[in-house]
Amino acid sequence: MTAPAYRRLSVEQRRAQLISTALGLFAHRPPEEITLDDVAAAAGVSRPLVYRYFPGGKQQLYEAALRQAADALEACFDEPTAGPMTERLLRVLDRYLAFVEQHDAGFTALLAGGSVAETSRTNAIVDEVRRAAAEEILRHLEVPEPGTRLRMAVRTWIAAVEAASLIWLDEGRVPPREELTAWMVEQFVAQLLVTATRDEESALAVATAVATEEREGPAGELFRRLVPVLSVGESLL
Amino acid sequence: MTAPAYRRLSVEQRRAQLISTALGLFAHRPPEEITLDDVAAAAGVSRPLVYRYFPGGKQQLYEAALRQAADALEACFDEPTAGPMTERLLRVLDRYLAFVEQHDAGFTALLAGGSVAETSRTNAIVDEVRRAAAEEILRHLEVPEPGTRLRMAVRTWIAAVEAASLIWLDEGRVPPREELTAWMVEQFVAQLLVTATRDEESALAVATAVATEEREGPAGELFRRLVPVLSVGESLL
Repeated sequence: MTAPAYRRLSVEQRRAQLISTALGLFAHRPPEEITLDDVAAAAGVSRPLVYRYFPGGKQQLYEAALRQAADALEACFDEPTAGPMTERLLRVLDRYLAFVEQHDAGFTALLAGGSVAETSRTNAIVDEVRRAAAEEILRHLEVPEPGTRLRMAVRTWIAAVEAASLIWLDEGRVPPREELTAWMVEQFVAQLLVTATRDEESALAVATAVATEEREGPAGELFRRLVPVLSVGESLL
Repeated sequence: MTAPAYRRLSVEQRRAQLISTALGLFAHRPPEEITLDDVAAAAGVSRPLVYRYFPGGKQQLYEAALRQAADALEACFDEPTAGPMTERLLRVLDRYLAFVEQHDAGFTALLAGGSVAETSRTNAIVDEVRRAAAEEILRHLEVPEPGTRLRMAVRTWIAAVEAASLIWLDEGRVPPREELTAWMVEQFVAQLLVTATRDEESALAVATAVATEEREGPAGELFRRLVPVLSVGESLL
């Protein structure tokens, strides 16, 4: 390995390199543990050079790294509207959890709250990602102008996914990632079913979703597993 | 109304009065909008007197108010282990949402993130409240040493309740509080049922809970409403 030949990069390339380097560092350690010297050393450049690109110092670099992470996360949500709905959701959640694993400490520091780097700007970026996730789900459910109840169900489930991801990291990644992903999809199905008992629009979304499902897919498997569990409640019918 | 006769209060009474006054102010405005002068004026005392009790100024007063709010919230969770489980949960959630309504702006500022008053200490208090809520639920479900999956289901639901409460405040308290409370209970039932399809311990908790329910209660009503919704998925069985 030779030392990085940093004079050869253009302004845009250098900026992108510094942001990617910073994101790599912020991903695995809480922001308070990262210094500009760490970023300069990891990028193979001098501290004054980092300041030339980011006069706002560490906070500016953190926000640029968060912006890049948010764009990467929003790209994870992008899923074609074809095939069983539960399988689409599984693929998105699988990409999401891969992202969470790759940015574990940074994800926790950002979302568990109380981070020194947290500002109204970083919160706005996080909220934008949540909104993008909700819009993508509603697009798949084919509800052009969702009402309060369906929107609340979707947004609440997104919060539940975030919370489960934080708990999962904190608990040493138990249960295994595949089980967690499947369980999150099942929580979505359950939440939508319950909301559909109160809200006509959500009932239509359920019908749209069920029409995409296959007997041998995740939804069929869940419905069959639910039969014995629900039979416990038969005396209440 | 006469002016407050502040010389008559003991040290402990004065401290309690200042904390309650601060909580009243922090409940309805974001912390950055409250000054020590506001607290002094609302308590009918001088600014130096407030500083004598709270040398750490606004932040110390904020944390003392948050401590009092956390104690009040934990008291909301206290529910006898008798009667249908869904009705116990409804009563707790009703007290919880009454608290949320009474502390709307403060609740949002604290939990939406990015508040200037947010520190590792305030986060520890919030996390303690969440833990207390989870422990109380597990106590009712009669699971003495819950495993990862059941704990994750309970903690994830608590995060969902928080998120739904924030959305509810933000959306001008739609749907009505009673409907929101009932929907949250139903989400809990749905989440537990789905988790029970994967986890023996959660299946036992479901059986314990169902045994407390009544045909004409919230669980019976939910199960009956679920029948037509689930019938949409019959082709997948």
